[in-house]
Amino acid sequence: MNQAVNSIELDIDLSEELGAAATAGDAARLNALFERLSLAEALRELLELSADDRRKVLTLISPEVAAGLVEEAPHELGADLMEDLEPARAREIMDEMDSDVQADLIGDMEAAEAEAILSQMDAEEAAEVRRLSGYDDDTAGGLMMSEVFECRSTMTVSDVIKVIAKDDEDVDRYRGQHPYIVDEAGKLVGVVSLRGLLATKRAALLTTIMVKPMSVQVDTDLSDLEDIFDKYDFLGVPVVDASGELLGVVSRDAVSKALLERAESENLKLQGVVGDELRSMPTGLRSRRRLVWLSANIILNMIAASVISAYEETLLAVIAIAVFLPMVSDMSGCSGNQAVGVTMRELSLGLVRPKDAVKVWFKEISVGIINGIALGILIGIVAWIWKGSPALGLVIGAALALNTMLAVSIGGVVPLLLKRIGQDPAVASGPLLTTVTDMAGFFFVLSLATLMMPWLV
Amino acid sequence: MNQAVNSIELDIDLSEELGAAATAGDAARLNALFERLSLAEALRELLELSADDRRKVLTLISPEVAAGLVEEAPHELGADLMEDLEPARAREIMDEMDSDVQADLIGDMEAAEAEAILSQMDAEEAAEVRRLSGYDDDTAGGLMMSEVFECRSTMTVSDVIKVIAKDDEDVDRYRGQHPYIVDEAGKLVGVVSLRGLLATKRAALLTTIMVKPMSVQVDTDLSDLEDIFDKYDFLGVPVVDASGELLGVVSRDAVSKALLERAESENLKLQGVVGDELRSMPTGLRSRRRLVWLSANIILNMIAASVISAYEETLLAVIAIAVFLPMVSDMSGCSGNQAVGVTMRELSLGLVRPKDAVKVWFKEISVGIINGIALGILIGIVAWIWKGSPALGLVIGAALALNTMLAVSIGGVVPLLLKRIGQDPAVASGPLLTTVTDMAGFFFVLSLATLMMPWLV
Repeated sequence: MNQAVNSIELDIDLSEELGAAATAGDAARLNALFERLSLAEALRELLELSADDRRKVLTLISPEVAAGLVEEAPHELGADLMEDLEPARAREIMDEMDSDVQADLIGDMEAAEAEAILSQMDAEEAAEVRRLSGYDDDTAGGLMMSEVFECRSTMTVSDVIKVIAKDDEDVDRYRGQHPYIVDEAGKLVGVVSLRGLLATKRAALLTTIMVKPMSVQVDTDLSDLEDIFDKYDFLGVPVVDASGELLGVVSRDAVSKALLERAESENLKLQGVVGDELRSMPTGLRSRRRLVWLSANIILNMIAASVISAYEETLLAVIAIAVFLPMVSDMSGCSGNQAVGVTMRELSLGLVRPKDAVKVWFKEISVGIINGIALGILIGIVAWIWKGSPALGLVIGAALALNTMLAVSIGGVVPLLLKRIGQDPAVASGPLLTTVTDMAGFFFVLSLATLMMPWLV
Repeated sequence: MNQAVNSIELDIDLSEELGAAATAGDAARLNALFERLSLAEALRELLELSADDRRKVLTLISPEVAAGLVEEAPHELGADLMEDLEPARAREIMDEMDSDVQADLIGDMEAAEAEAILSQMDAEEAAEVRRLSGYDDDTAGGLMMSEVFECRSTMTVSDVIKVIAKDDEDVDRYRGQHPYIVDEAGKLVGVVSLRGLLATKRAALLTTIMVKPMSVQVDTDLSDLEDIFDKYDFLGVPVVDASGELLGVVSRDAVSKALLERAESENLKLQGVVGDELRSMPTGLRSRRRLVWLSANIILNMIAASVISAYEETLLAVIAIAVFLPMVSDMSGCSGNQAVGVTMRELSLGLVRPKDAVKVWFKEISVGIINGIALGILIGIVAWIWKGSPALGLVIGAALALNTMLAVSIGGVVPLLLKRIGQDPAVASGPLLTTVTDMAGFFFVLSLATLMMPWLV
């Protein structure tokens, strides 16, 4: 309780103080303030400021802190923050980042702004960033950093220990990496462990204690990297090209972050938001992106609603049915969405593959039959009591039971089929599911009612 | 193409070979087969086997491989796999795991099975696992492992280097940890870096090169741990109790895994599945869990449908409206869900807090107004052309516009309000949102139609 109160007070003070310090151009004060905050808090405060104050803050604070903030921001936002800065300052902040982060940022920026920053770097460095940003995001190439603890095969244990003991920023970036041994052609030939280094005479050549390293190709995808890090305890895996040349190291941490981003972006897509929206983006962009998805959905909705249109006479005869049409379609949609959710989870855990569709359907239909019957009886009794008509109860109950079985079948299988034909199951499963279950729901209710008409009126 | 074909062939061979090897009790063959598979593939194959063959496989293969498989399984499944084994064998497999994983498994098991396994351990070890499994899952205590690279303050650099160089399984478990220095009372007093160890004379006391370590309390929660690992580059952070005694180390990797699990479980909850379902669970359990959520939803649906029931006369007069009722409620539900998705993402990124509800609403309503008007015009024209009535177009268009604004407002804010009152926004946001937008959608359409009746008939 006390803590909550304190944090609110702290918060009010902070917003004011940050604004004041930014206006006054008081770099020392800004650094001190950011020091007290977690990165998430600091980023939230930063986003509250006007675009002008935000640029001022990012220009005044220490490059380390600024780099931390930009890295903490979701990637589409990080690129925006950097684009607003003077290229020289942006470059200064980038200097504090690992090469994989630099490449991601440059890749997310507008071409002109990216070039402006790259032109501030020396030619070799800029070429490196360009090369890295050319790889696909969710591959070893896109996730690796090029700062590698690379040792020549002519080096001794003592040489390596001297490198580690040196107080050098480059070495800091090797965090947790083992020394990798390359031959004269730059090909990866071995790796040595810390234990190996410490337990061996200092004059020994690295080649006498190295072991054959595991490595991945530059186009290895995220799921395969996840498998490798699950199976082995490494903190990083070296990345090589087809000829075996050492290009970089992909860290366990980079893979974890990419997996978390993927899960969160999937989450958004299942809710109908394509393109990682944040509320700090321009309203026009947010609205447009959401509308694209919604407009497609309105067409699917019309197709479904046309079923109702075809049965207007039945509806006129038994208007009480209109009350239950949305219930049946909505409830089936929910049952189907549950099945979509479970399949999406099992896909991301690697427990099902697209070709397991038939197996999944068998597992799903048994749940569909039980739940269909249970919900059908429930809603049937409700309809009977509410409208005083057992025949109506029968129609609505039977329709929901049938439609639940259908919805659960479709929901369980559709993500797998979409994946099989190369579509993104997170985006398309929901709209496809609801269109079919709406259509079928309306059809079951209205066609059963037409059949049962003598008992309904 | 070629690769895909190969992997399918490999797959068919494997299922057969695994089954045969399990029946024959051929441990060497099983180990060789599992060697060729990623953990996800191996787990998928394991789950395809009968319960009996599965137990046989987990009993025959090497404990390391078995431990890898159980760790790869989602936690609720891992506990099930272990419960089916002989306690002595389960203990043997557990021996290969870090203490945090052991504690999670024991915590997820039925009490009787957990006790049976604990009774196979020596008293001290069992007490340790019991202690760890007592902490909440998503806190430093629940995520830490008790295998700590702990050094007495009387030790020298040479002593530590000897420990690292020793080929000892315990040391392997310290993966990436720096040596932590404790005083006679077990209180954490310092940490030394690898560089410090290598750059200092071997006779020096650790206390002369140690620095003050960052540490967290045992009840620090997952979000705070995420902040710390975002802000600092550590691979692990020591965990202390209120008196400063060193209890364990929470690794960056354990925090990443917990964050990914949380995102995936949230994903499921947003789809209406509470309780991390997998298709390998018993059908009865899966069906029951889904039904609980669906039954609550049916009641909310009834409340919404009662609005239609109140306007049956209007519907009878203009039956074409029945075609658009589900469209309006469904489209608004989709708009609201988009806003829910964005808020859930910003919550998990730490970019909004429950108390930011008003700010979020202002950001959301501007999108709601734009999209409401756009979709309203779109559906209005559709209704006009389809049913040949401009007045109907006006009613439906205005209703969708109003309801979209409402839905987007509710969708953006409801997760924050639920979080504020201590409810899980992932579970409750969707049902709450659709109930309100269904009710309001039906009400807008039908009350506007009642007002416009002279022009509609």
